[in-house]
Amino acid sequence: MTMKLFDPLKIGAMTIPNRILVPAMVTHLCKEDGIVTQDTIDRFARYAAGGAGLIVVEAMAIHQVKSGPLLRISDDKYLPGLRELASKVHETSDSKLVPQIIHFLKVARTGWRQTADMLSLEEIDQIVEQFGDAVRRAREAGFDGAELHAAHAYTLSSFLSRVNPRTDEYGGQTLEGRLRLMGRVMANVRRKVGKDFPVGIRFNVEEFIKNGYTVMESKLLAERLAEFGADYLSLSAGGKFEDAVHTPGQVLYPYNGYSGDRCFPGEWLPRGLHASLAAEVKSHLLSKGHRVPIAVAGKLDAPHDAERLIAEGSVDIVGIARGLLADPDWPIKVRRGEQDRIVQCDYCNVCKALDGTHRPVVCTLWPQGTIQAPRGHLPATAPQWADGSSGLSAALKDVRVTLHWRKASGAGYYDVYRADDRGGELKFIDALKVTDWTDNTALGGRTYRYLVRARDACGRSSPPSDPVAVDVPAPDYMTR
Amino acid sequence: MTMKLFDPLKIGAMTIPNRILVPAMVTHLCKEDGIVTQDTIDRFARYAAGGAGLIVVEAMAIHQVKSGPLLRISDDKYLPGLRELASKVHETSDSKLVPQIIHFLKVARTGWRQTADMLSLEEIDQIVEQFGDAVRRAREAGFDGAELHAAHAYTLSSFLSRVNPRTDEYGGQTLEGRLRLMGRVMANVRRKVGKDFPVGIRFNVEEFIKNGYTVMESKLLAERLAEFGADYLSLSAGGKFEDAVHTPGQVLYPYNGYSGDRCFPGEWLPRGLHASLAAEVKSHLLSKGHRVPIAVAGKLDAPHDAERLIAEGSVDIVGIARGLLADPDWPIKVRRGEQDRIVQCDYCNVCKALDGTHRPVVCTLWPQGTIQAPRGHLPATAPQWADGSSGLSAALKDVRVTLHWRKASGAGYYDVYRADDRGGELKFIDALKVTDWTDNTALGGRTYRYLVRARDACGRSSPPSDPVAVDVPAPDYMTR
Repeated sequence: MTMKLFDPLKIGAMTIPNRILVPAMVTHLCKEDGIVTQDTIDRFARYAAGGAGLIVVEAMAIHQVKSGPLLRISDDKYLPGLRELASKVHETSDSKLVPQIIHFLKVARTGWRQTADMLSLEEIDQIVEQFGDAVRRAREAGFDGAELHAAHAYTLSSFLSRVNPRTDEYGGQTLEGRLRLMGRVMANVRRKVGKDFPVGIRFNVEEFIKNGYTVMESKLLAERLAEFGADYLSLSAGGKFEDAVHTPGQVLYPYNGYSGDRCFPGEWLPRGLHASLAAEVKSHLLSKGHRVPIAVAGKLDAPHDAERLIAEGSVDIVGIARGLLADPDWPIKVRRGEQDRIVQCDYCNVCKALDGTHRPVVCTLWPQGTIQAPRGHLPATAPQWADGSSGLSAALKDVRVTLHWRKASGAGYYDVYRADDRGGELKFIDALKVTDWTDNTALGGRTYRYLVRARDACGRSSPPSDPVAVDVPAPDYMTR
Repeated sequence: MTMKLFDPLKIGAMTIPNRILVPAMVTHLCKEDGIVTQDTIDRFARYAAGGAGLIVVEAMAIHQVKSGPLLRISDDKYLPGLRELASKVHETSDSKLVPQIIHFLKVARTGWRQTADMLSLEEIDQIVEQFGDAVRRAREAGFDGAELHAAHAYTLSSFLSRVNPRTDEYGGQTLEGRLRLMGRVMANVRRKVGKDFPVGIRFNVEEFIKNGYTVMESKLLAERLAEFGADYLSLSAGGKFEDAVHTPGQVLYPYNGYSGDRCFPGEWLPRGLHASLAAEVKSHLLSKGHRVPIAVAGKLDAPHDAERLIAEGSVDIVGIARGLLADPDWPIKVRRGEQDRIVQCDYCNVCKALDGTHRPVVCTLWPQGTIQAPRGHLPATAPQWADGSSGLSAALKDVRVTLHWRKASGAGYYDVYRADDRGGELKFIDALKVTDWTDNTALGGRTYRYLVRARDACGRSSPPSDPVAVDVPAPDYMTR
């Protein structure tokens, strides 16, 4: 079956070979000096090897404000490292590569943070210049384009926000005022690099904070960004400072409130949770005659979800962040029909915790100690259980079902599948390296079935274990 | 055209004459003694006169904990007032009437609040008894059924919550544990009133708080509540203490955080914002063989939205809270094809502010000083402008468009309509009593058209004013 997901797409002057996007993900693989390291290069080349259509390099700053390990594009001295990164990715595959370019406001360990209204008009002028210079450097470094970061908690997003506190022409409770910095930045970027260098903008489809904007306004924002000449629009959501929870002694982390839940959805949030909002934006843009490609992210790593969104025309590009961190070979595997071999993200958010504490971001499903996803699409032998027996057993205590199974040879981790009745479909529910797992969401008066598969680091699987069925008794108050 | 919205529906032993629900709305029309007043009776009889299918009386407490003006059903001494209320509504029309029955945890002006884990097992047993006794009283008072309040910030909801902090069998991080209090309550209610007395449950389709449950779990909760024998399920959302903003000296108000935005959506949140979540729950229930009727609320006062949800089978009942507060005659007007005469809620949330400060809840579109919506479906003369001229003019300052118009005779208020281009559809955007209005959401480089209508208190309208068109110039950075 041909998948629309693998149709190429022209984005301004670049053509991406397929619709799969690696959204910007912080790696913390550089040092505080902000210079590209070999680990940084390896990380992004790994995505290229896996066949993603468009790779966005983690946010790099246009200015020199102190931060943790964060890439910089604020000076020509960063060009050699950036050139090496772009060159290595281009040598690896036909994936296109753009850096995400960011300006952020200051934060302090006391919980204090600089807000949009603390910037002087001179500082705003400087930001406009810095964005233009950064995009020029991106072109000089050999990137295929650039993405301006106007999502989450950062400067451009704080101006676009419905809670932008400024009262002058850069806010003033008007939508046009909130767009003014973004508009000036785009105008200057075009002055610096012309119309032919592809420049995308990432922004929030909803803020998901008190008084924050919703899709009603992001449709209008998208229309305006298209008029500003954005070559693609990439939709994210939430990730704001306004509802972040302050940990004493730490700088605010904008992904640990409810808006953070929406940005880094854990296992309790639905798959494709922002897809219908993105489809509304796309549909609005088409109604206004704008054909600018739209990307969206948010638990879209199920291949049928990704394909459906593209086939239906809901969006043009599917962003898969944590799913591609877990398995950079997702594109290759899906194209080859080896979907069963995908190392499936279970949304445990260990990667988020690593990001939040400024440690190198890795996936818990990778072999211990590695900082890159393992290579190798076809390991010689699949994991297997001695005598072919997983020894899977289930124990019921109160309403908790605990599974135990034996270690399998060659196993890197185990996938757990569950069905909520005797005949129902067994669905992937968790992935883990240990050999036991507890189900806290079983309901009384039902029979659940479980099975496990052992997998190696590249996703090659043992045969499924024999399933076990567990009758969870109805609670006492229903049977008395 | 026959509308499915006016099909009757059997809910257990009662049949509601149409699919229009007045969800529980606090009125603050009683005193601290919790006894039904004439104003309370008038408020609910007013909805009956307007033709709603099912009217849920504002929450009444099963216990005697101190609160503001809040109805009580915690003792037989409240029966006479409740009987009079039920009787008056039944005399008025064939609307069905159920009380919303609530247990809430304590709050203090310091910001302290009692949480689910502070209740002893004895107190839990008492709550189970009190709910049973309260529903028995509802039957004795002549209500057609009862609704248990398991939504928002209150006790049953706090147990159902994904952030229920208990570690025993009433929480313990298991879904079944979180359901235990609700299950025991329903079992006891059935012991007290049998199977024939209709008992519905209102609960959140999503909590919209950090770590809160989403539709993934509310589908399972709904399944369980159906098994508990709920005769209908009414879906709300948000309204939690966890993200409430504490105002010094005030008790926490669970509707002023982001989850409060979702519960009382203001003008910046989309119409029908929870309808697709409710449809997911309905569809899940049908897949499990449960035909229990599902209601949902959340900006559903556009008649075509309400009709579509019923016609498509997305839900069975449409809850319209603020829309029916603004115009209790909404059902009659829609049935008669007089949709143009509806007093349209503009989601200004003055009613929410009144609720939050314990003042009698009225609508800003009603004549000043009245505490009930005016009667009269066909006022003799419509409002009109002298010489037929509204004098509508538009002034542009920066990117703000300010409209001015003349007072119309007989006008109670004015509706403003806007189109975002010369040929586009003019849509209702605001309702107000003054004769000027400012548009903060105009974008540069576009032409907007505006018109106003003068309306009397019952929604009868003047002819539309002549439209005015305004060219908003493109910002300087786009034209340079």
